[in-house]
Amino acid sequence: MKLASLKTGGRDGALVVVNRDLSLCQRVHGIADTLQQALDDWDECEPGLRQVYDSLNDRSSTHALPFDQKACHSPLPRAYQWADGSAYINHVELVRKARGAELPPELYLDPLMYQGGSDGFIGPYGQIVASDAWGIDFEGEVGVVTGDVPMGATPAECAACIRLIMLVNDVSLRGLIPAELAKGFGFFQSKPASAFSPVAVTPDELGEAWRDNKVHLPLRVRLNDKPFGAPNAGVDMTFDFAQLIAHAAKTRDLEAGTIIGSGTISNKQGGLWGSNIENGGVGYCCLAELRMYETIEQGQPTTPFMTYGDRVRIEMLDESGATIFGSIENEVAQERKGSKSV
Amino acid sequence: MKLASLKTGGRDGALVVVNRDLSLCQRVHGIADTLQQALDDWDECEPGLRQVYDSLNDRSSTHALPFDQKACHSPLPRAYQWADGSAYINHVELVRKARGAELPPELYLDPLMYQGGSDGFIGPYGQIVASDAWGIDFEGEVGVVTGDVPMGATPAECAACIRLIMLVNDVSLRGLIPAELAKGFGFFQSKPASAFSPVAVTPDELGEAWRDNKVHLPLRVRLNDKPFGAPNAGVDMTFDFAQLIAHAAKTRDLEAGTIIGSGTISNKQGGLWGSNIENGGVGYCCLAELRMYETIEQGQPTTPFMTYGDRVRIEMLDESGATIFGSIENEVAQERKGSKSV
Repeated sequence: MKLASLKTGGRDGALVVVNRDLSLCQRVHGIADTLQQALDDWDECEPGLRQVYDSLNDRSSTHALPFDQKACHSPLPRAYQWADGSAYINHVELVRKARGAELPPELYLDPLMYQGGSDGFIGPYGQIVASDAWGIDFEGEVGVVTGDVPMGATPAECAACIRLIMLVNDVSLRGLIPAELAKGFGFFQSKPASAFSPVAVTPDELGEAWRDNKVHLPLRVRLNDKPFGAPNAGVDMTFDFAQLIAHAAKTRDLEAGTIIGSGTISNKQGGLWGSNIENGGVGYCCLAELRMYETIEQGQPTTPFMTYGDRVRIEMLDESGATIFGSIENEVAQERKGSKSV
Repeated sequence: MKLASLKTGGRDGALVVVNRDLSLCQRVHGIADTLQQALDDWDECEPGLRQVYDSLNDRSSTHALPFDQKACHSPLPRAYQWADGSAYINHVELVRKARGAELPPELYLDPLMYQGGSDGFIGPYGQIVASDAWGIDFEGEVGVVTGDVPMGATPAECAACIRLIMLVNDVSLRGLIPAELAKGFGFFQSKPASAFSPVAVTPDELGEAWRDNKVHLPLRVRLNDKPFGAPNAGVDMTFDFAQLIAHAAKTRDLEAGTIIGSGTISNKQGGLWGSNIENGGVGYCCLAELRMYETIEQGQPTTPFMTYGDRVRIEMLDESGATIFGSIENEVAQERKGSKSV
């Protein structure tokens, strides 16, 4: 099943069920007005939503409307929780290596996770409004949305709480990170609003590509219309989503609608030359990683961070080449034009 | 004006207006079902809410019901954002001093702030469910709830966005903090669900005690029915709420319903002997601060953290001695009895 939130519905958007090929959608007033409402009462809402989904796919629905990704906000335009892991330790290793630091071995046992701001996300086609003096970067990730997770839940119990999967652009302001982390309280100003794919899907929608609580498909990232990376989200993921959720739930309940991110997807590669996508490598899901390879091999980074007008596109295709979640496409802007989700 | 959320209203509670002396309340279905709805459309909702408030105070309301603090959830039972500052630098200085570290001078210019979990708070009379091996501590604070704050707003603009004031118990698991902060991503497991006072009030409700964007009244903390601290929230607050909000809004919009905390209230004192409340000092708003004085003066802490059955009570009185916000009263429990907000 595929779900999205149209921007027409106010702060929380208007929930629609989207058909498999993302050509049709349908409002579901009688079931839930917003995605958060559906997540709050998932057991009651899910059967009806699946009926609508089936009727869209077999074209029997009489209430179907054309679906337009650009009319969507993030599936949860605002959320009660957004917690982002850093499950691809290769990414963390490169960060440390680029600054000449050792990787503490416990990072292979205990996930890194930060509490992100969730009061307002940018839309999948929304602008990243920021100063380009802040070192603007994208981070391509996979995220899951949970139901209620009781405190202390085991990874197996957490796996059963995964309701939806979507893509993430965890926008990062690299220039602000060192000073902020040095203060000891984690990210705040350096992690502005994130964006999510137009469509969130239930795990069954991924078929065999969803196993071991990981998504075994490449995440395709394009920068200004050129391929930049396509690492496989199922490879080198040290902690799976069930483990990440269990980490988050160790000392507190997680309430329905909690979003847990994977962290920047990163596959182990053979250095700068072999990693770049034009050389047949799988490339990167953020600029920082390329810049770290440049630093390690060439002494300094040469690829700049994003500037005004730069565009990042993030998507994932199924085995037939069709888009699963729709695309995130965020452009950097110096000043906002219209509303945040535009 | 005073507002609260009864636990009867589902995940978001049921909004009520509460009269000044906290004896009466009234549901306001026709205006807003939940506090978040009122905050989302504050300009439309506020006049009607104030009319109800006036009618409760002059006893002309025909829909008044008895008000029971224990029937309340936190004013926002879940929120889209909870960001906690650390505006009382004395507290930070003591932390550093106790571990023999210098205080970086920039901490007087640039606020410390962490992103807290906001998907589900405990109720004002809710239990703190945690292992007492984790070093359970309370932190008495003041918090404000904002309307929409645009990115880059000045402190003066932020001051105008303050909608409500309430008290906070920012529950902290001290034993988990060192290892978590050492990982570099800030607090997560070490900051479980916080609790807020039963009642949130508009700034005008505090009269002269609300000035310079600070609350100039003592925060009264009792531990197991004995006075533990009563430092003045308007004293030694290095950053006022307008500055804290501006810090949070530097790189992103803050959406209506954002909660910004002051951090543990802490007044500069003359050491352990003079600080303790039984010696006429103003005492402390968290156990850690007393333990830091003990460490600095005696080489090691002697006051234990909270264990099962321990109760902390946090409140603030007006000049006539009446409670302004009602009380937070959280008891530590090993296992949950009933729902989280009980």
